[in-house]
Amino acid sequence: MVSRSVIGFIGLGVMGKPMAKNLLEAGYPLVVHDIRHEPVRELVALGSKEASSAKQIAECSQVIITVLPDSPDMELVALGPGGILEGASEGKIYVDMSTIAPSVAVKVAKAMAAKGVRCLDAPVSGGDVGAQEGSLSIMVGGDEQLFNELLPLLRVMGTTIVFCGPSGSGQTVKACNQAQVALNLIGMSEALVLGAKAGVDPAVVLKVLSGGFAQSRVMDVRGPKIIKRIFEPGFRSKLHYKDLSIVCDTARDYGVSLPASALARELFGAMQAHGWGELDHSAVIRVIELLADAEVGAAED
Amino acid sequence: MVSRSVIGFIGLGVMGKPMAKNLLEAGYPLVVHDIRHEPVRELVALGSKEASSAKQIAECSQVIITVLPDSPDMELVALGPGGILEGASEGKIYVDMSTIAPSVAVKVAKAMAAKGVRCLDAPVSGGDVGAQEGSLSIMVGGDEQLFNELLPLLRVMGTTIVFCGPSGSGQTVKACNQAQVALNLIGMSEALVLGAKAGVDPAVVLKVLSGGFAQSRVMDVRGPKIIKRIFEPGFRSKLHYKDLSIVCDTARDYGVSLPASALARELFGAMQAHGWGELDHSAVIRVIELLADAEVGAAED
Repeated sequence: MVSRSVIGFIGLGVMGKPMAKNLLEAGYPLVVHDIRHEPVRELVALGSKEASSAKQIAECSQVIITVLPDSPDMELVALGPGGILEGASEGKIYVDMSTIAPSVAVKVAKAMAAKGVRCLDAPVSGGDVGAQEGSLSIMVGGDEQLFNELLPLLRVMGTTIVFCGPSGSGQTVKACNQAQVALNLIGMSEALVLGAKAGVDPAVVLKVLSGGFAQSRVMDVRGPKIIKRIFEPGFRSKLHYKDLSIVCDTARDYGVSLPASALARELFGAMQAHGWGELDHSAVIRVIELLADAEVGAAED
Repeated sequence: MVSRSVIGFIGLGVMGKPMAKNLLEAGYPLVVHDIRHEPVRELVALGSKEASSAKQIAECSQVIITVLPDSPDMELVALGPGGILEGASEGKIYVDMSTIAPSVAVKVAKAMAAKGVRCLDAPVSGGDVGAQEGSLSIMVGGDEQLFNELLPLLRVMGTTIVFCGPSGSGQTVKACNQAQVALNLIGMSEALVLGAKAGVDPAVVLKVLSGGFAQSRVMDVRGPKIIKRIFEPGFRSKLHYKDLSIVCDTARDYGVSLPASALARELFGAMQAHGWGELDHSAVIRVIELLADAEVGAAED
């Protein structure tokens, strides 16, 4: 049923634009909306239609997808004036693929359900490259029947697609993921700074640690780049900082105390204080270096 | 030269005893010493000689190896009354394979050098199973020429043997390793507790995280056991707590500030406060559970 439906797509940023392009290429009739004209024009040139508001998108589409920066943006577009809820009617489907707070996902799903609109929260990981290649990981919360119904659509955008549980669960698992990645990065940063300050070649530290129980994918991918002082994203630290704020807020919502994630949030906050928001999140090592007045990988001099 | 030398071995604990056995089986003439009679008797029954003190070990061996619990034990056995330094003479070799503070390793190596005794610090990882199988990872600091000379001996006990730099460097890399492992464990713990409290099946959290950028070896090995509430060591938390104290002391020695490792030390300290010192270090999740008044993997009820 869904395969021939019109898809409405809101949010054509670094992630959303390539995801929308992939849907278009896969043959889905597309209607797009964004507050910026440029990406809308680009999609229209490729065969998409455009709409002037989120409400209009909801009126003319069977499935509405949003990819927006943060919880307030998503809530406004979904429930605000001129938003999706105003235009949507019974039987329509709303899939939010932004990374937002699980509590907001649950709130929006409830409001939509009251009007007969079924929802999935489906945040992604894999970065802009994953979005372009259609190889994203997608973590999905909501009704499992609806998940199965939408799988063909999700498979256009991602390869690893996991049903996580009821509404909000996709966002919860994404939050868990972002906490774990941050702490793996900070562990590597502290190990490399300690080693460097004690006079050990960072390449040796990395070789030993990645060959044993201390290994992590973060270390495999980012460790060698850190030593070469390459901090191009990858995943921008300002987005990971936002995600860690979601982690801490969600912990509060559910009565959980996460001392290490809270510290991680503050260390990522220090990156923003220094104007390093556009650097890769692995640049958190620069915060540890600041504290220690040291630099890893500057062994040449 | 070393292959026919008498090896003196001090410290026949969980790690030391199987390491000494492997040396004996490889054909090295062995003299052992321990404050406990039982393991000495066991090694003597297998063909080892015994000595009544560290000093006597040093007098009758060409290469002296120690595997002791902590920095003060090692310093006492090496430099104290009736210790190695008293019995050692020019040309002898001392290899400490305990996990101790890098600063103590450097201090002992200096004292030994003044008497013409050459030293390596060579802490291991891989646990009692690695010790039994002779498959330990060995991180070595000291003179590289001496490292190469002793490689055949070290290969009897380990498979991954890395030269890390001058005296103390082996201990430094081990400290880096222990900080990284602790933070990977804590990250996993916070992710699982957050997910569980928000109502997501921990097996789903683990599946998504281990399949993506959040993966770590710690997660692969210990994650499934945590969900089954299996906390048998593995690596006992009291030893990791000791190692994190070394990390923090070493950070201070070298003028490094490690906020996350310091937090890790305190969370591992909480395990000791609760009498969980004999549990696997992955039981740090029980501290996060305590804070959140939650339990991961109790989804059956």
